[in-house]
Amino acid sequence: MDVYGGEVTRLIEELSRLPGIGARTAQRLAFHIVNLPEDRALALSDSIRNAKKNIKYCKSCCTVTDKEICPICSSAARDHSTIMVVETPRELAAYERVGKYEGVYHVLHGVINPAAGIGPNDIRLKELIERLKDEDVKEVIVATNSSVEGEATAMYISKLIKPAGINVTRIATGIPVGGDLENIDEITLLRALDGRTEL
Amino acid sequence: MDVYGGEVTRLIEELSRLPGIGARTAQRLAFHIVNLPEDRALALSDSIRNAKKNIKYCKSCCTVTDKEICPICSSAARDHSTIMVVETPRELAAYERVGKYEGVYHVLHGVINPAAGIGPNDIRLKELIERLKDEDVKEVIVATNSSVEGEATAMYISKLIKPAGINVTRIATGIPVGGDLENIDEITLLRALDGRTEL
Repeated sequence: MDVYGGEVTRLIEELSRLPGIGARTAQRLAFHIVNLPEDRALALSDSIRNAKKNIKYCKSCCTVTDKEICPICSSAARDHSTIMVVETPRELAAYERVGKYEGVYHVLHGVINPAAGIGPNDIRLKELIERLKDEDVKEVIVATNSSVEGEATAMYISKLIKPAGINVTRIATGIPVGGDLENIDEITLLRALDGRTEL
Repeated sequence: MDVYGGEVTRLIEELSRLPGIGARTAQRLAFHIVNLPEDRALALSDSIRNAKKNIKYCKSCCTVTDKEICPICSSAARDHSTIMVVETPRELAAYERVGKYEGVYHVLHGVINPAAGIGPNDIRLKELIERLKDEDVKEVIVATNSSVEGEATAMYISKLIKPAGINVTRIATGIPVGGDLENIDEITLLRALDGRTEL
């Protein structure tokens, strides 16, 4: 029996399609939404509609923005000869929160993942190559995640770009600050050892 | 700097207002939504709008439904002389999933919680009293949660109803099935002891 009636059941279904939202959380969220003041519930509904309808990608770095060119790419204060390649706008935001990186970015919107049918043409790699032709870039820092796909994508980018004489670097893999060696996986321990630097 | 641009940032803000959704999850969900096919994103937006706009409460038991009287209250197969009082439609749904309870329900939409400014008039208690006047009810099973507020609300309902000669019962507190005594809190252990039954 559909104990909640059509509309609420449909809302629960829609919410449970979201990643990381199980049936129980979807129920909890649905009832929270239903009990919200009407203006707040509609604000949530509209923000989804508007974000989807008005989404724009920076014509230069492909990040999500509300302008033709994002604030970082259009800033004269940034170093446009250094490009950090990231998987998604979330990693861009993470580095912007740190606030120490002065170069610009390129957002791939994914990584190469043959198992999931995602090839080099399915991410914003062509756009990166175009930028390297047009702009005077000295260094490309590949900051994809240190997953298998992230590493493979980093290698792919390196092989693609290096012949053009551009310096390609990779962010370091190692023990996170405050990390307890005992609880760190073996591959990270080995990588940290391989990547040791002089004191 | 607003790295995502207005619309996406607004969506992240709206999502992070939801209970249990932190800043990080809100970001993850927002980008998931932005990357959804348009029809799926709009289906989510519309389901929120429709659930809020068309929400109805059963005129009898106050549960969330899309009809004047919910399917359970309008079913002749249910025992209308037994009412289980629950906090929210989620608990109703939990008992309906079990499928063994044959009576009807009454949904309070909350519990009495003086600390949060929620008094007896802020939950659907008046509606319960009205039902008891009009209908021929033999037993009221109070199935509020076994939190401090849930217990206090159960006591309040009992004192209110018992004088009218209606049998008021409370669902049992004890060790959950499969529960390991070692990991169960002291109050539950004491309650389980107090509530022991003959074998």
